[in-house]
Parts: sequence; structure tokens; C-alpha cells
Amino acid sequence: MVKETFKRELLSIVGKDNLWENPEDVLCYSYDATPLPPCKPDLVVRPTTEEQVGSIIALCTQEGVPLIPRGAGTNLSGGVVPVDGGVVLLTTGLNRIVEVNREDLYAVVQAGVVTARLAAEVEKLGLFYPPDPASMSVSTIGGNIMENAGGLRGLKYGVTKDYVMGVTFYDAVGERVVGGGKTVKCVTGYNLPGLMISSEGTLGVLTRAVLRLIPPPRARKAMVVVYDDLIKASETVSAIIAAHILPATLEFLDQFTIKAVVEATGVDLPTDAGALLLIEVDGHPAQVEYEYREAVSICEDSGGQVRVARSEEERDEVWLARRKALSSLARLKPTLILEDVTVPRSQIPAMMATIEEVRKKYDLLIGTFGHAGDGNLHPTILTDRRDEKETERVEKAIEELFQGALDLCGTLSGEHGIGVAKLPFLVKEVGEGTLRFMKRLKGGVDPRGIFNPHKLVAAYERGLERD
Amino acid sequence: MVKETFKRELLSIVGKDNLWENPEDVLCYSYDATPLPPCKPDLVVRPTTEEQVGSIIALCTQEGVPLIPRGAGTNLSGGVVPVDGGVVLLTTGLNRIVEVNREDLYAVVQAGVVTARLAAEVEKLGLFYPPDPASMSVSTIGGNIMENAGGLRGLKYGVTKDYVMGVTFYDAVGERVVGGGKTVKCVTGYNLPGLMISSEGTLGVLTRAVLRLIPPPRARKAMVVVYDDLIKASETVSAIIAAHILPATLEFLDQFTIKAVVEATGVDLPTDAGALLLIEVDGHPAQVEYEYREAVSICEDSGGQVRVARSEEERDEVWLARRKALSSLARLKPTLILEDVTVPRSQIPAMMATIEEVRKKYDLLIGTFGHAGDGNLHPTILTDRRDEKETERVEKAIEELFQGALDLCGTLSGEHGIGVAKLPFLVKEVGEGTLRFMKRLKGGVDPRGIFNPHKLVAAYERGLERD
Repeated sequence: MVKETFKRELLSIVGKDNLWENPEDVLCYSYDATPLPPCKPDLVVRPTTEEQVGSIIALCTQEGVPLIPRGAGTNLSGGVVPVDGGVVLLTTGLNRIVEVNREDLYAVVQAGVVTARLAAEVEKLGLFYPPDPASMSVSTIGGNIMENAGGLRGLKYGVTKDYVMGVTFYDAVGERVVGGGKTVKCVTGYNLPGLMISSEGTLGVLTRAVLRLIPPPRARKAMVVVYDDLIKASETVSAIIAAHILPATLEFLDQFTIKAVVEATGVDLPTDAGALLLIEVDGHPAQVEYEYREAVSICEDSGGQVRVARSEEERDEVWLARRKALSSLARLKPTLILEDVTVPRSQIPAMMATIEEVRKKYDLLIGTFGHAGDGNLHPTILTDRRDEKETERVEKAIEELFQGALDLCGTLSGEHGIGVAKLPFLVKEVGEGTLRFMKRLKGGVDPRGIFNPHKLVAAYERGLERD
Repeated sequence: MVKETFKRELLSIVGKDNLWENPEDVLCYSYDATPLPPCKPDLVVRPTTEEQVGSIIALCTQEGVPLIPRGAGTNLSGGVVPVDGGVVLLTTGLNRIVEVNREDLYAVVQAGVVTARLAAEVEKLGLFYPPDPASMSVSTIGGNIMENAGGLRGLKYGVTKDYVMGVTFYDAVGERVVGGGKTVKCVTGYNLPGLMISSEGTLGVLTRAVLRLIPPPRARKAMVVVYDDLIKASETVSAIIAAHILPATLEFLDQFTIKAVVEATGVDLPTDAGALLLIEVDGHPAQVEYEYREAVSICEDSGGQVRVARSEEERDEVWLARRKALSSLARLKPTLILEDVTVPRSQIPAMMATIEEVRKKYDLLIGTFGHAGDGNLHPTILTDRRDEKETERVEKAIEELFQGALDLCGTLSGEHGIGVAKLPFLVKEVGEGTLRFMKRLKGGVDPRGIFNPHKLVAAYERGLERD
């Protein structure tokens, strides 16, 4: 519980229209998009200026009250769950696109700007902001940076981190910190944009970013490739990369997911297919033609049947099918656990085999889709948290999926982060020495530990507990 | 002075063939490629295994002895000068290319691997490591990461930071820390590859990196564009970017530099030209043709005369001219001060005008060349450190160049770092709050301050002293 005086001071910073304390109001901020038990914050505030962020932090540090920065709350690992209560700080009041510079190819935005809104704005000006997490219609740039959000275009265009040129954030004493800037090269001091990437709100509250924009591709071509066999589809992915073709998008859906999508959306996809690849190449028109022909030939050699999108509508339908994968699966069971294992691309067939083994061994429903081109798979377990016996099997299955990814030189999480959900497993991937280093880093910049406590470096204690 | 017992313990770690203490041996490590007064280290060690690095650090931390990691020492801001003595740790004994993975497009290398050697190795396997700092024939991957080295291909391909997928380093207690890895996406904990970038050896000693490789471009075309006027040349740069053409390379030489290069190398360039642009486009053959034609047309519209390299030999001669710019200028005067101001690309004409004003005002010899496409210019002051009066004017000129860059939303350094040379100016760019944050970060991970002291965060005290 926070003190009355603390609340009054917060109120004087943000005003009564931007502070919530009633249980029914703060309830919405007790969870994110991860199936975890809710944790209610004491207060929710929405600063409307960047300076207010500094004042709020200074107050929280002074009183030792936890502060949990939150964008749209689409987090997939519990990153914004206020484990110990405290103050949830919504960045949604900081939603200005400050500048889009066509000559120098950058945008300056506040942290609460919704990603899709920025993408649409720059598109109007003939520019391109490539990162496209599935949540982009609601998720914010600040959240994307804090989680290093990926998306469907990662293979060719990279992820959020590849587009952050500059950051402004407020540190644990409420002071404004600026790193990087509007130049494409900048090496004046520590790489603070890099430090903020995937820090999950534990080192500071981001208020502003300078984002790199690029010229849009001049042409693109999309196709669906139908396979009778899952392994053949995943082997094609390696073959395409090995042929030095980098499609903008190279996505994968297994049979279970295809069926779920067709049932949920009525989209025209073959439900008897063993697996699908969705491929889009883009760039200069001649290069697109060349890469398209090469990709078709590789897919056909490996037993795939290629269907080309002949119009923008058909293309959009292909991407809709992929974007609806998660929500289509979510309809089938009360609890959906979305994993995010990532392996070097050539290990995808082996990772797919591991997922299949685990599914059989623990008798679970698992649909798998994902960014095959990045080696980033989303095995999605459909279950019911209330079924204790199945939940036990689910937990064992997750542990084996993680171990399987690590055994293949992979990682627990390609783009969803650690948050709360993956805390107990972090030590397995990075080792105790690395966790101790992260803890000292965090301790240096946030000595009272007010920023998003019980996340990330908390894995140190948690990891040891489990051993 | 270090203690005898300390020296004996170091000796027991690295062996007598890898420890130097005689004045004539350690002298070579008292400076780097920056014109600064030399500072002699007490000892120089060259570990030959990564584990030895951990042991050396643990010993230095225990005894409170400064430890200065050093690759090839090609630093251009004094980053490896052992200001207070201590131990210089050479990474050149860690020079194994551990793995080049053609399927998954990455290389694992030890920190002391020379960049050009890696580039050549991966080229043999049909792959491409784009970062190409001018020093690449001797500089090391570890040094490149610690300084976030740029190069001639930054415009299209980015800089070192864009290719670091994973790092292994030893922290201040001598413990091994691992961040990132072999997957193209990884968000498990703090972005430690990002943290190491441009940290100038102040946070840990890098021993190993996983580097991203890409398929090489299928075609390329180079040209030299001759201008009678410097401003016209710099305006062309903006026009090319605004036309959404991203050449692999877009370099600039002013008249003074052209003359110096022709005198030094005999290369066939017009010495009466006001300025030159060196442009190379690459990619798919059809795209290269298109971008080449567009670039030619833009250059001609702005008054440039285009000369195309008709053979690989002619192309190599063009790049040789650019790569020899610095050494050609260095022949002219005893002291060469190479600056690294960087501005948003559209501000290049304004920055060129500032350089010209400063040159006139302080009556100095300044040759300017650089990565115009990145907004990164190298105004190079030719002087004689022994001439006290001129040295005073040089110092004022540098200060005005920095201020000029900042006034244009630019930065002190695009790719050379802060080191010692730019310490007094860092606070002007980032502000005191940011420096305080950097200091706390450093304090958290290196509480005894043994890693490369008097660099980077030392700017905090230095900056305040000047005010």
C-alpha cells in the first residue's frame, strides 16, 4: 500500500484525470497478454509530458515504491505485470510523432506512439519503418524497444533494435538521459540505445526515440507453398538461405495451425496440407523476379506446391492468415501458452522434431507457426490452467522445449522476452556469471531497485532457488 | 609501479614469452594512432587463452591495478593510452577464427582476429562481412567492436554494431559473461552485445564474438564524380539519398586532399577539381544498372562530371585513392589531427561551410574527406605540435568544429570514439545527466574502476572542470 501523501504528490504531478486507484480501474493493469495470475498495482498514472515522467520517478525512488512502465500491455512474457504492486506508469499519454525527416530518413517519436500509426504516417511520405510485430496495431514504440519486438520482416530487415538511432529516457533519480541521436553513426559514450533494447523497463523509463527509416522496396511478390510434410517445409527454409536469397518474409504454419486459421477466418488454405510456407520477396523489380523464380524452384525441388498471390488482395489474404494464427488457436482452449524458442536456421528441422516428440510424450495440443526464416518458432500449447494434471505436463513440456532449443545452440526467446514467465529458465541459457553481471549493471543504475522489480535480473535468485 | 609479487603472479598466468616489462618493450604500448603525449604502461601481457584473461582481470581487481585492453592500437582518439600506467592486455594472442557457418550465416571469432583476415576467409566461402574500417588490414574485431568502427560501406550496410550477434567477455571480477548468440534474434536478458559496442574497454575485456555474415552483392559499379565546387558536391549527397538510392559507398574528398593523394600515390585524379565524390552501387545486376543511371543523372544535374570505372583495376584505383587519403595528408606536416564530426546527411553542405569558416578564421591547413553518405566527415588539421601559437589556434578550431556539428544536430564522433582526445567535449553533447548515468553504469559493473581508467565516464569530472 502506498501512503496518502505519496498519492497526493503524484496527483499534483499528473492531475486527477491521469491517476487511477479504484480496484475496477487498476484491475486492467494487473496483467498483460501472458496467461499469468494477475497482480494489482496500487496506482496507475498517465503522464502527459516527458518531464512528468522524471518527477514521478524521483518521487517513487524517494519513497521506494516500485514503478512499472507500460505501453499497450501486449507483452507475451509478463513483462509489465506489477508483481509487488506499486505504480504502473502508462506511456500512452506520450503519443506525439514529433518529426518525420524525409531527407535524413529518420523519425522522432514519443514512447507511447502506436507502431502501426507511425508506419502509416511514414508510408504516406514515401518511407518505410520495417519492424512489424503482430501486435503493431496497438503496441507502442516504447514497448517494442523495451522488448526488442520482432515481426514478420525480421529475416531481411531485422528487428526493432536495428532501427533505434537515439533514445531519451529518465533514470532512477528522475534525470533525463539522452543517447545516440539523429546521425546514422554516433559513438559518443556508451551505446545507450543498445542498452535500452530488451531491458524490459528495468533500467529507465523511455520517453522518446529517434528511429531509422528506409526507402520502401519498389516491388514485392508473395506466395504460399503447400507441403505434405512438415520436415520438408522446414528443410526448404535452410535451402533458400543457403542459396543466398533473403526473402522479406519467410513464415511457417503447421497443419494444426492451418486448420485453426481456416476454421476461424474462412481463408482459402488447404487444411490437408502437412505445413505451409508463406514467402514474400521484395526489392528492385528485376531482383524480385529473380529471387521469386529461384525460391519457386527450390520449393518445388523439395516437394512444395507453389501458389502465387496474383493481386494485392490475395497477398493481403496470405498475411491475414498468418497474422490470425495466434487468435485462431486461442479460440480452441481456455489457456494458450505461446512459446518463442529460436535456433540457428539450419536447426529448424531438428527443433520441429523436438516439438513433435514433446507433444507426443506429454499428450498435448501444440500448434506451431512462426518466423522460420529467423529460426524463430512459436510452438503454442493449448490447455486449461484449471486442469492441474495437464498443467503439470505442460510445465515439463516447456522445460524440454527450452532445453531442446539450447541443445541446438538456440535461445529461450527470440522476441517475447523473459518477463516473469521465463525467469526460472534464464540461468540455464546465460549461466550464473552472466546473471551476476546483469545484476551489478542493474544495481549500478537503479540501486533502490524501483524499476519493474522481480523481472530479468531477479532470475538470479530464482534460478538458484530452482537448482 | 606494480609490486613484484603481482608481476610474478601475472607471469605464472601467461608465461615469460607473453609478458614484457623493459622500457624499450613497453614503450610501443604507450600510445596509439592519436597524436597525444605517450603514457608508459608498467607491464604488457598477451594472454593466449580466454581463461587467462579472466585470471589476469581477477588479479588486477584484487590489487587495484589499471587494466587497458588493446587490439592493434589503431585507435584515433587515444582509447588505449594507459594514462595512469598499469597493465596493457594485448588481445592479439586470441586470434582464432573458431567457426564460419555458411548455412546459418555467422562467424565465431576471437577478439584478436584481424578484420581483413576474417573478411578474406568468409569471402573464400562465398560470404560477406561488410564493416571495413580504413585500418582493417591490421585492426582487430575486438577493437572494432569496442570502438564501433565504421568504414566505407556504412551507408548501405551499417557499421560494426550491425553485425555483432553475440559476445563473450570477462567482467571486473574475472568472470566469463556471455550475451546474445548464434540466433539472429535473442532477447534473453540485457542486450550485452549492444552494451559492449563503443564501450572502449571500460566495462570488460572482450574475448570472442559471433558476427553476422550476409550474401555478397551479385554486381557492383563504381564511379568518380568531379566537381568544380565543394558545396555542389555535398548537395549531391543529399539529392542521391532523397531519391531513395542507397549506394554501398558515397565518399567525399576536397581539393586539398585530392592534391595530397595525387602527390603521394600518383593516382590519376584531377588536381584542379574543387571536390570529388566516389560512389559505388551494388546489389542485383538490374538494380545496379538502375541505381547507377539514376546516380549519374543526379550528379550531372548538379554539375558533376562522371567518370566510370570500366574494370576492376580502375575500381580498385578509385578505392585506393580514398584509402590513402589519411596517409597522404600525414606526409605534409609533423602533426595530423583527424576529426570525426558527423551530422544528419542533409546538413553536410552546412558543415562543410563551417569547416571552411573555421579554417579561414584560424589560418590553418585543413583537408576534409569522409563518408559523406553517412554525414560523417573527417576534417584533418595539419599542424606542428611544437608550434605553440598554432597549437592554440588548433584547439580553438577543434572546439568550434565540435560546436558547429552539435548546432546542426550532429555529434562529436561518428566512428573514432571519445578516448582521451574528446573527453573534455563529451559533456557538451550528452549533458551532465547522461554522464552521471554512464558513471553509475560503469560503477555498477567495475566498482574499483580498473578497466581503462580516465576514459569515457572520466569525462564527467573533466567536463565539470572546464566549466
